Amino acid sequence: MKKQKSAYWQKWNKTYKDELLKNILPFWIKNGWDRKNGGVYTCLNRDGSLMDSTKSVWFQGRFGWMMAYAYNHIKKDIKFLDISKSCCEFLENHCFDKDGRAFFEVTADGVGLRKRRYVFSECFAAIAYAEYSLASGDKVWGKKAVELFKRIRSFVADGQKWMPSKYTKAMVAQGHSLTMILINVANVLKQISNDPVLDQQITESIELLVKYFIHPEFKALLETVGPNGEFIDTLSGRVINPGHCIETSWFLMDVAVARNDSALLETALKILDWSWVWGWDKKYGGIISFKDCRNLPPQCYEQDMKFWWPQCETIIAMAYAYKLTGDKKYMEKHKLISDWTWKHMKDKKFPEWYGYLHRDGTVAQPAKGNLFKGPFHIPRMLVKTWELTKDL
Amino acid sequence: MKKQKSAYWQKWNKTYKDELLKNILPFWIKNGWDRKNGGVYTCLNRDGSLMDSTKSVWFQGRFGWMMAYAYNHIKKDIKFLDISKSCCEFLENHCFDKDGRAFFEVTADGVGLRKRRYVFSECFAAIAYAEYSLASGDKVWGKKAVELFKRIRSFVADGQKWMPSKYTKAMVAQGHSLTMILINVANVLKQISNDPVLDQQITESIELLVKYFIHPEFKALLETVGPNGEFIDTLSGRVINPGHCIETSWFLMDVAVARNDSALLETALKILDWSWVWGWDKKYGGIISFKDCRNLPPQCYEQDMKFWWPQCETIIAMAYAYKLTGDKKYMEKHKLISDWTWKHMKDKKFPEWYGYLHRDGTVAQPAKGNLFKGPFHIPRMLVKTWELTKDL
Repeated sequence: MKKQKSAYWQKWNKTYKDELLKNILPFWIKNGWDRKNGGVYTCLNRDGSLMDSTKSVWFQGRFGWMMAYAYNHIKKDIKFLDISKSCCEFLENHCFDKDGRAFFEVTADGVGLRKRRYVFSECFAAIAYAEYSLASGDKVWGKKAVELFKRIRSFVADGQKWMPSKYTKAMVAQGHSLTMILINVANVLKQISNDPVLDQQITESIELLVKYFIHPEFKALLETVGPNGEFIDTLSGRVINPGHCIETSWFLMDVAVARNDSALLETALKILDWSWVWGWDKKYGGIISFKDCRNLPPQCYEQDMKFWWPQCETIIAMAYAYKLTGDKKYMEKHKLISDWTWKHMKDKKFPEWYGYLHRDGTVAQPAKGNLFKGPFHIPRMLVKTWELTKDL
Repeated sequence: MKKQKSAYWQKWNKTYKDELLKNILPFWIKNGWDRKNGGVYTCLNRDGSLMDSTKSVWFQGRFGWMMAYAYNHIKKDIKFLDISKSCCEFLENHCFDKDGRAFFEVTADGVGLRKRRYVFSECFAAIAYAEYSLASGDKVWGKKAVELFKRIRSFVADGQKWMPSKYTKAMVAQGHSLTMILINVANVLKQISNDPVLDQQITESIELLVKYFIHPEFKALLETVGPNGEFIDTLSGRVINPGHCIETSWFLMDVAVARNDSALLETALKILDWSWVWGWDKKYGGIISFKDCRNLPPQCYEQDMKFWWPQCETIIAMAYAYKLTGDKKYMEKHKLISDWTWKHMKDKKFPEWYGYLHRDGTVAQPAKGNLFKGPFHIPRMLVKTWELTKDL
């Protein structure tokens, strides 16, 4: 007997597709895509007008990936492929320095402005190349993706040379971001390559997370720990970033499904449950930016703001957890976060969502993009959760 | 005939002294001063309890200066001298690296943790040494101050080596902070040295400000401009930091008085008037953190927050402008900013003020210090404005 679909999930399923194809992607294609130089602008004002032509290298990769991902998963629109290719080519032609490292920002026509001590630009380029290769069937981009992935690993392995610490030897620490992003990058690349380095990376990253970053004494996954996972009892060592942890939880669900690993699924759900307790704002709703694991006042200025991306990650993670467990508590939390997000993040007048809200849900500033917000978390959530909820 | 004193100003004059000597300084002396290792802790929670023993090098200099300044100007308390000396010695013994550059943060017992690409740590050390030398009569510290000042100038002159830009050659820019802070540092050092380099620095800095950073087309002093003062039409190039500009305005008043330079006073008042228009929040009161000179949405997360220090700078500047001009509009603005600040920044329960408020004046997080907030802007405002209003 075919299981009857849930009206709750099917209402959301339709909403995700409509929001993606009628509002979010058209906004960025119309206002962001640079038809002249290739690639994408992200510093757009509320109505989509350009505030700054500086290009974020992260977003050349993120939008390149996003358009190919939308093509592969939700709509075979040839324009999506063209845009993805435009971003990949802009990356390849303009966004890498002679030393093989990618820039962080470049001019409209692709002159390098700034490099940073991280490999996120490279990571997002790699997923763009891989997803575009899958979408277009052009194996050259797949090969470039794997080469770049190996280069990223070599940069990380020789961190002292490529990404020298800001701190002296008296403060050795490691961050959660790099560990978690490499899981996602490897997962995307596995679609176009069976190179064993990809599974090796996923296994290594998960081991690090479990061994070092998960701190049961705080029921938390910490952002920064010592070289052997030591708790660092300082303002920065105590930081919990609930949205980040929740993003990690669904990256782990991806791996748990692929590997049919129920212990890993338990770990993912534990991180999700803990991080919801830290992140959900019982007074105003929404997922808050930062907490201190000893409940002291967090010192980042944005600590009590509500940003777009933690809400998106939570929507994905709750739908995913419900799909994998059938546990009603995840549906209830999906409803809480979704209602709050749609009510506060959506702009009634212009298609793309706001990104920066005060704790109480009022808009702090109405621009739709900058070097850190662009066409990624919101459309990724819409495609991913559309897919997760198809059969619910 | 002796001019009658104003009840308005005398009420404030008494308030400044009481607040300084009964609340602010005792809070930091009790909770911040490190009697064991010397120097000062600043990462204090609302009630003064220690949240993090990492020491800010900026604040070793700032508190060292502050205690000597309070000694020199408002109360000849020998304990103030002891504390100032303790900070100067901690700086000298622990806060400089082998290359002559100062650290940005060190451990409780003075192991260097991190250096930054700026010379602010060095600048605050120099004013501590100079003010302590003046207070104690110990000329050795005065000599150290001038030597350090010259070293700072050599670091700045060879910026490529000592403070390499984060950007490539495609984005050359200069910032307002360094230019303005050197005016203040030189001014403090002039009390203990007649080395001509000090006046030379002041003259150079003022020329840069007037020629490059003041942009009449926006009625603004910009934070970042091109090498020849060019307007950079990007998110970061358009930033106005009203509190910073207002601080600069009273640094210039100091010089205008010392040099009896009425044209410079006009410039200072112009910057103050412009920056008040940009900074004063007509809806909620208080000086806002950032504006965009084309009135686009500023992208720093704290853009619409109210921090403690811009309010302090504005209180000083308005009292100063009134004292120098007798223009009632400055008294009116002094009243606006003072009433707002005392109402929102003061903690009713514990002596030191809050530092981080939302735009509407509610407390964003209640800690009293971190690596950026400590015993400097508030007590400096209290002593300086107490002095300015003595005869009003």
